[in-house]
Amino acid sequence: MTFRPRVDVALVHAPVINRQGDVIGSAVTNLDLHDIARACRTFGVDTYWVITPFARQRKLSEQIISHWLAGHGKKANPDRGDALSLVRIQADLEGVIEQVRAKWGQKPAVVATCAGEGQGGMISYLNLRNRIRQGAPVLLLFGTAWGLAPQVYTRVTATLPPVHGFGDYNHLSVRSAASIILDRLLGNRENCQDC
Amino acid sequence: MTFRPRVDVALVHAPVINRQGDVIGSAVTNLDLHDIARACRTFGVDTYWVITPFARQRKLSEQIISHWLAGHGKKANPDRGDALSLVRIQADLEGVIEQVRAKWGQKPAVVATCAGEGQGGMISYLNLRNRIRQGAPVLLLFGTAWGLAPQVYTRVTATLPPVHGFGDYNHLSVRSAASIILDRLLGNRENCQDC
Repeated sequence: MTFRPRVDVALVHAPVINRQGDVIGSAVTNLDLHDIARACRTFGVDTYWVITPFARQRKLSEQIISHWLAGHGKKANPDRGDALSLVRIQADLEGVIEQVRAKWGQKPAVVATCAGEGQGGMISYLNLRNRIRQGAPVLLLFGTAWGLAPQVYTRVTATLPPVHGFGDYNHLSVRSAASIILDRLLGNRENCQDC
Repeated sequence: MTFRPRVDVALVHAPVINRQGDVIGSAVTNLDLHDIARACRTFGVDTYWVITPFARQRKLSEQIISHWLAGHGKKANPDRGDALSLVRIQADLEGVIEQVRAKWGQKPAVVATCAGEGQGGMISYLNLRNRIRQGAPVLLLFGTAWGLAPQVYTRVTATLPPVHGFGDYNHLSVRSAASIILDRLLGNRENCQDC
């Protein structure tokens, strides 16, 4: 039987911060839905939660998704609907954590990501990758705009270190960051028999 | 002195294939410019080549970039110009290879990426990562639409294996694939003293 990771992704549109550090709510974008859903589908994520407190943004998101699940898009590109079928739109993080807990029958590790300095307790990619392989349910949080608001970090189990390369530029798109982090946690690896 | 990898990225808009396998030229998109430039900047890529044979698409691309390098965008978000300054727009792959060769004083390894079956000689991520650290110049090719056309693979040094997770879905966006592959080749790694 194939191993199925118990990993969910949540894209948080509020509370996040803007360039000045103010706590705001950001707008849902079409490409965040598509690109992150495709990455989730590739790496075996169970549910891709899109969190926005704005009712009209939730409605717009549902309309975009239904185009690919049931509308013209389904016929034009069924692979896209395959990915977008993972998306669930929710109003707040509390509700998502509760639904993930109900789904797995236990509270998930709520793991934040960050682009700058780590906030609170950190967990390494290798450690989290191993915990996932042991069957631990995990909810990964990604922030839009300039990142998750401070109050989100007070509620998480741990935070992953920022993704870096050569130099100190840390302005990856959330689409790129989510893709890279899912690969680090769930991607195929050379010289690894069971992954 | 900080190590500087001699790695370039080329995003190919022609020749690529469409869903039916026909050889086509695709349109440049704003988000491919931004997201891949930001990933290139993060991981220390030297130049991000955007290849399209269509003169009006080249002009449009230059206009988008100049907005962030010199226009209103520079003031609104200087980090974006920092990333987009890596972009060079070119008409064909031949010209890019020639310029990369001139820049480094030797022919680069031209390494293709693919989403499906490997084409021609393959190179592992670990092997290429090591070659980059030894100072080898590398030009990484990414295809838009449904991927690089077969004639591109006949001209490359080697091809990287597709990125996979759990299951057989292989429809990552080119933005996600480029981000993941740059991380695999150039990203920081735990338990690794020199990376």
